[in-house]
Amino acid sequence: MERIKYAPYLDKIQTPEKAAFLINDKDILGVSGFTKAGDSKSVLPMVAKRALTEDIKVTVLSGASLGYDTDADLAKNGALYKRMPFQADPTLRKSINNHEVLYVDQHLGQTADMLQKIDSFKIDVAIIEAVAITEDGYIIPTTSVGNSPAFTDNADKIIIEVNTSFPESLIGIHDVKTLKKQPNREVIPVVNSDTRIGDPFIKIDTDKVVAIVYTQVPDSPAVISAPDDKTKAISKHILDFLDKEVEEGRLTESLLPLQAGIGKTANAILSGFTNSRFKNLTMYSEVLQDSTFELFDSGKLLFASASSITVTEECSNKIFANFEDYKEKLLLRPQNISNAAEVISRLGIIGINTAIEFDIYGNVNSTHILGTNMMNGIGGSGDFARNGYLSIFACPSISKEGKISHIVPMVSHTDHTEHDVDILVTEQGLADIRGLAPIERALLIIKNCVHPDYRTQLLSYFEEAYALGGHTPHILSKALSWHTQLKMEGTMKIETAVKNEKNIVMAYEL
Amino acid sequence: MERIKYAPYLDKIQTPEKAAFLINDKDILGVSGFTKAGDSKSVLPMVAKRALTEDIKVTVLSGASLGYDTDADLAKNGALYKRMPFQADPTLRKSINNHEVLYVDQHLGQTADMLQKIDSFKIDVAIIEAVAITEDGYIIPTTSVGNSPAFTDNADKIIIEVNTSFPESLIGIHDVKTLKKQPNREVIPVVNSDTRIGDPFIKIDTDKVVAIVYTQVPDSPAVISAPDDKTKAISKHILDFLDKEVEEGRLTESLLPLQAGIGKTANAILSGFTNSRFKNLTMYSEVLQDSTFELFDSGKLLFASASSITVTEECSNKIFANFEDYKEKLLLRPQNISNAAEVISRLGIIGINTAIEFDIYGNVNSTHILGTNMMNGIGGSGDFARNGYLSIFACPSISKEGKISHIVPMVSHTDHTEHDVDILVTEQGLADIRGLAPIERALLIIKNCVHPDYRTQLLSYFEEAYALGGHTPHILSKALSWHTQLKMEGTMKIETAVKNEKNIVMAYEL
Repeated sequence: MERIKYAPYLDKIQTPEKAAFLINDKDILGVSGFTKAGDSKSVLPMVAKRALTEDIKVTVLSGASLGYDTDADLAKNGALYKRMPFQADPTLRKSINNHEVLYVDQHLGQTADMLQKIDSFKIDVAIIEAVAITEDGYIIPTTSVGNSPAFTDNADKIIIEVNTSFPESLIGIHDVKTLKKQPNREVIPVVNSDTRIGDPFIKIDTDKVVAIVYTQVPDSPAVISAPDDKTKAISKHILDFLDKEVEEGRLTESLLPLQAGIGKTANAILSGFTNSRFKNLTMYSEVLQDSTFELFDSGKLLFASASSITVTEECSNKIFANFEDYKEKLLLRPQNISNAAEVISRLGIIGINTAIEFDIYGNVNSTHILGTNMMNGIGGSGDFARNGYLSIFACPSISKEGKISHIVPMVSHTDHTEHDVDILVTEQGLADIRGLAPIERALLIIKNCVHPDYRTQLLSYFEEAYALGGHTPHILSKALSWHTQLKMEGTMKIETAVKNEKNIVMAYEL
Repeated sequence: MERIKYAPYLDKIQTPEKAAFLINDKDILGVSGFTKAGDSKSVLPMVAKRALTEDIKVTVLSGASLGYDTDADLAKNGALYKRMPFQADPTLRKSINNHEVLYVDQHLGQTADMLQKIDSFKIDVAIIEAVAITEDGYIIPTTSVGNSPAFTDNADKIIIEVNTSFPESLIGIHDVKTLKKQPNREVIPVVNSDTRIGDPFIKIDTDKVVAIVYTQVPDSPAVISAPDDKTKAISKHILDFLDKEVEEGRLTESLLPLQAGIGKTANAILSGFTNSRFKNLTMYSEVLQDSTFELFDSGKLLFASASSITVTEECSNKIFANFEDYKEKLLLRPQNISNAAEVISRLGIIGINTAIEFDIYGNVNSTHILGTNMMNGIGGSGDFARNGYLSIFACPSISKEGKISHIVPMVSHTDHTEHDVDILVTEQGLADIRGLAPIERALLIIKNCVHPDYRTQLLSYFEEAYALGGHTPHILSKALSWHTQLKMEGTMKIETAVKNEKNIVMAYEL
C-alpha cells in the first residue's frame, strides 16, 4: 500500500478482471509502454481475454511496441480495430497484413501532437503503469514515459497499474512536461541531454482515475543476439568514419549526442564505442538498450536521455539491483520530447538506425517487405533522420544465403527520402552521400556498400538507366523487378547480368 | 557612393567584368538569390560569359533559384560543374537531366548546416547583392537573405554587388542571425512570425571583401498566371477545410502561421484567403508572392516572415513605391531560420505546397517527371511538411487533356512520405488522411481527389492489390505501369479498366 501515497485512490483498488470491464466495445485506449517497457501487464491483456467470449473491439494507441503477448493476443482474439503508432509483434503484424487490423504507422514523436490536432482519437481510457503514486495522486511511471502524459491529458478515464516488481529507486528518473496546444506552443528548453524541464511524475486530473490495480510482473525482457561478424563490421565502419570526422576536426572526441534504434545491429554498433577513442559521450535517444549500460560501465558514456529502458533479463538484473549507480546518469522523457524536431536539430543528434533495404540513390525503406507487408514500423527513425546532424542507416548487404540484396535499384517503399539520408553502411563498407548528386551517390553506394555478388548486377541496372538520361536514372519497368523476381523465383539474383564497361564508370572512377 | 558607408571599400569598387576575373576555374561560389530575388545580376552572369571563351567550370550554391538567364547561361556555356540546393530554369534543368551538370536537390533549410558539417563545399567566393553597406562594412541585403550569411561566413573572398535599383527603404527589413556550429547550437528564440533575433545586416569579415560593383538592374519579375477554375477550386477546398477546423474548435480564426510554396497554385490558394472568414493571419514562409501583399492590402494579414520577396512587375511597382506601408509588417530571415525545423514545429506552421503527383497511400512526388527527370527541386516543401502543424499538398487531378492523372498507384519518386503528409487536394476535392491506415487513405483519396476519368482505373488497381493482402497493398509489377504506359503510349488511361464491385468497397463505404 505504501506505493500509493494518495489516500482517495485506496478505495479504487480492484482486480484487473474488474478493471478491464470499465473498457467498452469501440473504446479508444491510450496505453503506456514503449518497446516492451512499462506496458500494461494485467488490464490490457484482460481486454484481449474478454474478446474470447464477447464482442469487444478497441483501438489501441501506445508509446511503441508492447511486451509479452499482449499485442498478439489482442490481434488473435479479434479485439483490435486499429493500432498505432508502432508494433513489433509477429501475430499482430500478420493480422495487419491480412487486413484484420488497421494500423497507422506514425513518427513516434508525433502521436501526442496528433491528439491535440484531431478529435477522432479522443481517448476513452488511459491504462498507465506506475511504480508509485505521489501524495497528490500523480503517476510515477516505470521504465518508459512514452505517450502516457498525452494519453492521460486526453482521456476520459484513467486506470493505473501499480507494478511492485520495479524498485522504488526508479522514482526520480522521469522528466515530464506537457507541451501546450497550438497556438501556444512554447520553447522546449532542452539544451543538453541532461537538461531537466519538467516534473518527475505525470500530473493528472485525479478525478479521472476509475481504477487502480496491482501487478508484480516485470517487463518482458529484450532478447538481443550477440554481435556477429556482420554487425561487428558495420560497427567498425561507422567508428572508422566517426574517427575520421574527429581526425579532420569536424567533430570532437565526445561526438554529438547519439541515438540508436532498437535491435541487434544498433546494439552492436553502440557496443563498439566501448573500445573506441571516443569519450565523454552522451545519448539523446528513444530507447536505452544493454549497450547503453555497457557504455556507462566502461566509463565512455556520461549521460543518456530516452523515453524507455528496454534491456535483457541479465542486464535488467544487473541494473535494477544497483540502480542508484545509474540513476544520476539517465532521464526518461515523453516521446514527443525525446523525439522532438526542435531538440533533435538543436542538439545535433547522430542518429543510427537500421534499414530493411536502401537504393542506389539513398532512399531507405524501414518498414515494408516487398513494398506491401508491414514489418515493425518506422518508429522514431524518421524523427531523428529528418532533423539530426547525421542520419546513418545500416543493414547487411545480403541475406537468405544471398538471395536478397538489401541494396536495390529502387526501394519498394520509401520511409526516408534521398534528402534525409547522410550515411549508408553495410558490412561491406560505408557511403557518405552528403553533398552528392544522385549519379555520384549511385556509384559510391555500389562501390562501397553492395555485396560483390550483386555489384555487377546493380551496376548493369545503373548503366542501362544512365544511358537513358535523367537526373535520377531509372528504368521504371525494371526499377522494382528485383522485388518481383524475388517473389516469383525466390532470389534477386540474375545470373545473366553482364557488366558493361561504359565511360561513365571510368569517368567517375568507380 | 552614399550607399557604401564604409570608406575602406571605396577603392575596391570596380567593374563587373574585372570582378568576375577574381573567380577561378573549379571555384565553389556561394551566391545570394532566392526564387529570383536578390541574386547577382552582373558578376555571376559575367562568369557565364567568360565560359564562352575560356575553360572555367564552377560549383554554384545559392539560396534557391536565380533570376533572368543566369542559370541558363551558366549551363548553356558549360560553366557549371555542380549546382545546389535548388533551380527552376528550363535550360539548366535540361543540362542536369542530360548529365552535363551535377545537381544536389536539398531541403532549403539545410544547406547552411551542411557547410558547417562537411568541408567539400568550402566557399571560394561569395557574391552577394546589397542594397547598401553599413558604416562597419556589413552587407544589407536586398529582396532576399537566403544562404548569404552562411556563404560569407564560409568564404575566402567576398564580392558585393550594390544594387541601386532598390529603394533604401529596404534597410531594416532583414533579421540576420548566424547559428553557432555544433556542439554549440543555441535555442532559436523565434516565438512568433515577427520575433526579431538578429541584426538588420549580414556581419562579415571586411578583410574578405575583394571587390564591390554597382548594378542597377531590378529583380527579374515573377510571372504568375491568374487563378483559373482549377486553382480556384483547390483554394476553395482548402478554405472549406480550414473553416471546418475553426467551426469545430480545432483552430481559431487567425489559424496558425501560413507557409505557401511558389507558383500559380500556391498563390491562388493564398489569394483565396482575401475573401474568407479568417482574420489576423500571419505568415512564416520562405517566399512572399503577390498574394501576400493582396492579403496585407485587404487587412487580413498582420505579419509575414520569409526569406525572400518574389513578386510580379506590377506588384513590385506598387510595393516598392510605398514600401514604408509594408515595412513594419514583414521580415526577411536567413533560410536556415525561415525553414528551421525548430521554429516550424514550435509555431505550428500550416504548410501549403504543390505536388507533381501523389499516390493512393499519400506519398508525394515534388521533383521528378516519370521518376527520372528533375523538374525544379524539393525546395522548402520538406522543411515545412516534415515539421509543421499541417502539411497540405495540392495539384490538379489531371493534365494534358486528361492523358496524365496526378494521382497514381505509386509515385515514381518520393519526396514526402506517407508519414509526413496530412492533406491532399485537387480541384476534385480534399482528403484529410491524418490518423488513417493505408487502406483507409486509398479509398478516401480515390473518392475525393481523383478525376472521374481515372477513378475506376485506380480503384481497379487498388482492389486487385488489396486482394493480394498487405498493409500497403501494391502489385509491384504494375505499381509504376501508369508511368511506363504514359512514356510508351502517351497516356495513362487504360480503356479496358473495369470496376470490380468487391466487398472491400462496400465495407469502407466509398
